[in-house]
Amino acid sequence: KIVTLHDSWSGWICVLLVGFSSGIVAAVVDIGTSWLSNIKDGICLNAFWLNKPQCCWASKNLTFDDYNNPKCPEWFSWPEVFNDWNDGFGEFLISYFFYTFWAVLFSVFAVLLVRVFAPYASGSGLPEIKTILSGFIIRGYLGKWTLLIKTVGMMLSTSSALILGKEGPFVHIACCCGNIFSYLFPKYGKNEAKKREILSAASAAGVAVAFGAPIGGVLFSLEEVSYYFPLKTMWRSFFCAMMGAFAVRMINPYGNGHDVQFSIDYKAPWSSFELIPFILLGILGGIWGACFIKFNIFWSRYRKTTALGRYPITEVVVVALITAIITFPNPYTRLSMTDLIKILVGQCKAEDESYLCNYRRNFTSANAKILPADAGPGVYKALWRLFMALIVQITLMMFTIGIKVPSGLLIPSMSIGAIAGRMAGIGVEQLAYHYPKFILFQNECSKADESCVTPGLYAIVGACAFLGGATKMTVSLVVIMFELTGGLTYIVPLMAAAVTAKWVGDAFGKGGIYDAQIELNGYPFLDNKEEFNYTTLASDVMTPRPGEPPLSVLTQEGMSLAEIEQVLKETSFTGYPVVVSRDSQHLVGYILRRDLQMAISQQRRNPRVSGRSMVYFNQTVPQNSTSSNAAMSLRFYKLLDLAPVTITDQTPMETVIDMFRKLGLRITLVTHNGRLLGIITKKDVLRHTYSMNNHESVFT
Amino acid sequence: KIVTLHDSWSGWICVLLVGFSSGIVAAVVDIGTSWLSNIKDGICLNAFWLNKPQCCWASKNLTFDDYNNPKCPEWFSWPEVFNDWNDGFGEFLISYFFYTFWAVLFSVFAVLLVRVFAPYASGSGLPEIKTILSGFIIRGYLGKWTLLIKTVGMMLSTSSALILGKEGPFVHIACCCGNIFSYLFPKYGKNEAKKREILSAASAAGVAVAFGAPIGGVLFSLEEVSYYFPLKTMWRSFFCAMMGAFAVRMINPYGNGHDVQFSIDYKAPWSSFELIPFILLGILGGIWGACFIKFNIFWSRYRKTTALGRYPITEVVVVALITAIITFPNPYTRLSMTDLIKILVGQCKAEDESYLCNYRRNFTSANAKILPADAGPGVYKALWRLFMALIVQITLMMFTIGIKVPSGLLIPSMSIGAIAGRMAGIGVEQLAYHYPKFILFQNECSKADESCVTPGLYAIVGACAFLGGATKMTVSLVVIMFELTGGLTYIVPLMAAAVTAKWVGDAFGKGGIYDAQIELNGYPFLDNKEEFNYTTLASDVMTPRPGEPPLSVLTQEGMSLAEIEQVLKETSFTGYPVVVSRDSQHLVGYILRRDLQMAISQQRRNPRVSGRSMVYFNQTVPQNSTSSNAAMSLRFYKLLDLAPVTITDQTPMETVIDMFRKLGLRITLVTHNGRLLGIITKKDVLRHTYSMNNHESVFT
Repeated sequence: KIVTLHDSWSGWICVLLVGFSSGIVAAVVDIGTSWLSNIKDGICLNAFWLNKPQCCWASKNLTFDDYNNPKCPEWFSWPEVFNDWNDGFGEFLISYFFYTFWAVLFSVFAVLLVRVFAPYASGSGLPEIKTILSGFIIRGYLGKWTLLIKTVGMMLSTSSALILGKEGPFVHIACCCGNIFSYLFPKYGKNEAKKREILSAASAAGVAVAFGAPIGGVLFSLEEVSYYFPLKTMWRSFFCAMMGAFAVRMINPYGNGHDVQFSIDYKAPWSSFELIPFILLGILGGIWGACFIKFNIFWSRYRKTTALGRYPITEVVVVALITAIITFPNPYTRLSMTDLIKILVGQCKAEDESYLCNYRRNFTSANAKILPADAGPGVYKALWRLFMALIVQITLMMFTIGIKVPSGLLIPSMSIGAIAGRMAGIGVEQLAYHYPKFILFQNECSKADESCVTPGLYAIVGACAFLGGATKMTVSLVVIMFELTGGLTYIVPLMAAAVTAKWVGDAFGKGGIYDAQIELNGYPFLDNKEEFNYTTLASDVMTPRPGEPPLSVLTQEGMSLAEIEQVLKETSFTGYPVVVSRDSQHLVGYILRRDLQMAISQQRRNPRVSGRSMVYFNQTVPQNSTSSNAAMSLRFYKLLDLAPVTITDQTPMETVIDMFRKLGLRITLVTHNGRLLGIITKKDVLRHTYSMNNHESVFT
Repeated sequence: KIVTLHDSWSGWICVLLVGFSSGIVAAVVDIGTSWLSNIKDGICLNAFWLNKPQCCWASKNLTFDDYNNPKCPEWFSWPEVFNDWNDGFGEFLISYFFYTFWAVLFSVFAVLLVRVFAPYASGSGLPEIKTILSGFIIRGYLGKWTLLIKTVGMMLSTSSALILGKEGPFVHIACCCGNIFSYLFPKYGKNEAKKREILSAASAAGVAVAFGAPIGGVLFSLEEVSYYFPLKTMWRSFFCAMMGAFAVRMINPYGNGHDVQFSIDYKAPWSSFELIPFILLGILGGIWGACFIKFNIFWSRYRKTTALGRYPITEVVVVALITAIITFPNPYTRLSMTDLIKILVGQCKAEDESYLCNYRRNFTSANAKILPADAGPGVYKALWRLFMALIVQITLMMFTIGIKVPSGLLIPSMSIGAIAGRMAGIGVEQLAYHYPKFILFQNECSKADESCVTPGLYAIVGACAFLGGATKMTVSLVVIMFELTGGLTYIVPLMAAAVTAKWVGDAFGKGGIYDAQIELNGYPFLDNKEEFNYTTLASDVMTPRPGEPPLSVLTQEGMSLAEIEQVLKETSFTGYPVVVSRDSQHLVGYILRRDLQMAISQQRRNPRVSGRSMVYFNQTVPQNSTSSNAAMSLRFYKLLDLAPVTITDQTPMETVIDMFRKLGLRITLVTHNGRLLGIITKKDVLRHTYSMNNHESVFT
């Protein structure tokens, strides 16, 4: 009774542990990253282990600079530490030097850790996890070393100025936790298919802890990562994501008491005409996504095929150095990307003195409505800097994603989108202010006391559109976006941008960046999103092709051990069909090479077994044959898979592919009137879909 | 080129139309319901076609009564219309009479419409739609009559005081729209499988327009309604739901400019100790859900098997009369359930004078924080009335859900849950106020200027828990709840309540109310949520059972037309396997009875065809046989399904069920060494799972 109960609850307990541990790791990474990032600026001299907000926590002399950065006397920036050079230019140089120094140092540590201890820890890991969840096994990809190195490496690489994020890698980290904990429960640790259920739940927790978006995490797992996602897995993922979010909330690494990372505080309704700029942002996001995918794949292939690939450490150092040098002068790129997004999605308040909020407004009170207003010179200055930041981030990101450090592309895409969106938002706002009689604005923006265009909302929509362009997510993206911002009123704008970005992106090429990377790396991933619309039949695809030698089969009886060993030696297939006899070719079952080899080597120890021993796959060994032969006969009935999936030669390939996808097959046997004709493997299917879709074949 | 483009876009255009039309129907129903509901109270004498808020729109003398109901001079309540009896008791009696009169009248109209024009329009329709989406066809269930009558009937039944909601039926209405529009696109109208994709999207739109929850709609379709939900359908559903939400927003039937129905305006963080009452609410919801399902099924079965079932109109009238008489005296039950929920989830504000908000507080300003305070006598009065309302609603709902009017159970469940939640919330609040030193409250509620317990939040969590208990939804429920309320901060409490309610409910019996109704009605629905954990084999389930006569098969050649007609006459199977010969039983293919009969009746017109004609299912007819016989031989090769799905007799039933679910099979043929042994139909599988599960409830 207790055993059954334990058995039925072990799945829930396992995902509980996975969710909780992912949440703790995420919180640790957040704290570590925040400290390391601040080290680039300066140090808390009283207590060097504190980051800037913690250091300034109790300070009474807190002030803010142009970009809303706090300043407090307890926190010493590097020029202040070396207070000899405290004049204007010297101060700048010292800051510049330390910023670059730390950035390069962090990235060198990150790449060394990855190269020396865990090569699998580089990149975001999402393409590989997708492949693993589709049934392929990569040994060690989800091990404890990968977990440890990826966690530390991610803190380092995120804290260096590199244009990369930590949200994608969190999914990999959570999956490592999932893999490790599943070994505590034999039901999951010993069964790859069951383990994949845990991994699906873990990837939901990964996104949940990365963005504080538990529902978005479940949908991300469903839409982007998981291959097979039954409802039971969905409930587990939901629970796992909830536990992860709860753990993060308990530790509270952001220190703001909010569960929402880019919390927005406006609820201004959007006007219908604004759908036009939102859809334009979607188009822009789609185009950018397509360009990014194309260039990134081109560059990765270039890296693979040329000398560049042999110097990964040098590549990281060069990219980090250039990034640090370029990003420091522009205050928007100097900020961490999450801080930048936070500023861009926000609304200008009465007391806000930053460039971005330099409007010609007269506020009567702090609670007054924020109306459209004429932009001051500060706004134009900010626009120009944002434009530079946009160019810099786009260019650097192309070269950064793919270098050998733990790196995700979600936050960089959002950052680029938020910049583009905020710029578009300011543009629309100024248009609406200066031409209130224009036909579009007339109905909605002409009322005197209504706020009309919120540039921060455009930043949110832009982030959604650009992220959608790169990853081709839709539902999960929208949910993540509104869990990130709390902007529930803006579902329709977000949906419009996400759908447009996906459509436009798909016009340039199917699949998101992860699918492109899977194809680039040649992983055996059978896409379950695309439809197969050709009229080929199973007989056109199966092995043997016409003219090829017939299939290697074993017969149910009448083969000697030596003959079977001969077959095993001459061929290297993973399995062999067993038929009644060579003449009839009626299918009995299927046997795996591994099982057969193991059984033979075990039996070979018996001195009565020799090459002349007859091998039977029958349920009952015929009596006469046992006695007539000197050598003991062998019976391998138990090894046989008596229920191999079979199809007829006339089955359309569309159906065959459907069966491969939905039943997770590796092979299927092709018969005609009950006779075995051939075999179709997953590789055959992949090769066929690729050749039909006119992709170049990357499989060998 | 244009044809291909049209082909690929037709799906999107179809869901666009479906989404938009659902949105328009929903808005019309909302407007109609609001008008009819208000008719029960009184009438706008200047303009009888206006509902109360519209009537009072421009009024300057707007006042509010104890329950926040607006009062304005333009709106005449029935006693005021007949102003002879304008004293206390007479007024009450007149109101009571008109309330009851209209309620019964509306319900009579509703039931008559349904009985006379469209019997399929009764109930929520969700069990049937689930069954249709699993591959069963119910002719006329999604026709235009059903659409029309359900729309009108729903306005009437919702406006009568009956304890039912209109949110479930919206899904049915949206699916009717989906079915109707799919006939505009031959690709979808002529292919049942393709049409189901549209219906999945339509059901997402149904929830989206009912609750204003587009994402929740997609997830509802995924978790609760759809059987097979690939990513492509998800994207379409997303788009469809978005269009529906957009259409509702354009028409703006609530007139509040908000997209959110039960919009809450507080953002107070919840404390960790509150998880305890939340989980208790979840347990309560689970228990209530289990009781409700059990009683509702018992009552439906009683209705089916006894005389009660023969008087559906009388039943409706009696239930409506009793409901009206009971609900009028209690102001909370007199309100429409959506209004009641709106009050319960809200927070007491400074100017709020209603009983529910009768706290001993001293507000210094309208913007002051709302701190826990001692409850005044009004609160206790309100609590008592809420308790009565709880009892009344629980009792009446049991008897109401299942009567022959369009009726959903989502809003009643939420209403009951919100009442229970609010009561629990007030309880916890008073505990925290009176015992601030108690260990649980000590850390979080002892600070002087922090709001600590928000009773409105408990109402939300309660609604979530009770709805979860009845339907066993989880992810979609949480998303719907926070799209309904905008309470993004409260994801974790909502998740905790939903998961607890599901677990507790599952302990009493698997499946939600819709699954129970499917089972009650005996629909052929193969549940894809439950795991099948038994070790039976295909050979244990297949027909023929041991001892039964062998399977009716046709042979590839050698059967005369008369023999085949004999087989068709003697048996009534939907299809027949075709084998090479009776001796070998090697399977060639499968032929549908319908196709065979049609082909025969066509050929029979040919005078050269007689009963002696030989019938061939070969690809090439043997030459000798054609000439040797006087009658012309027939060739039915083209009719043959050459790729029937086959399995071996040793296949575990777990795998067989998996194949039925995932490939949407109706039959599969069972072979052994290529010889046909038997057949397994969907009915066999259903019978087997039912007998094995024996309706036991255990966790898996």
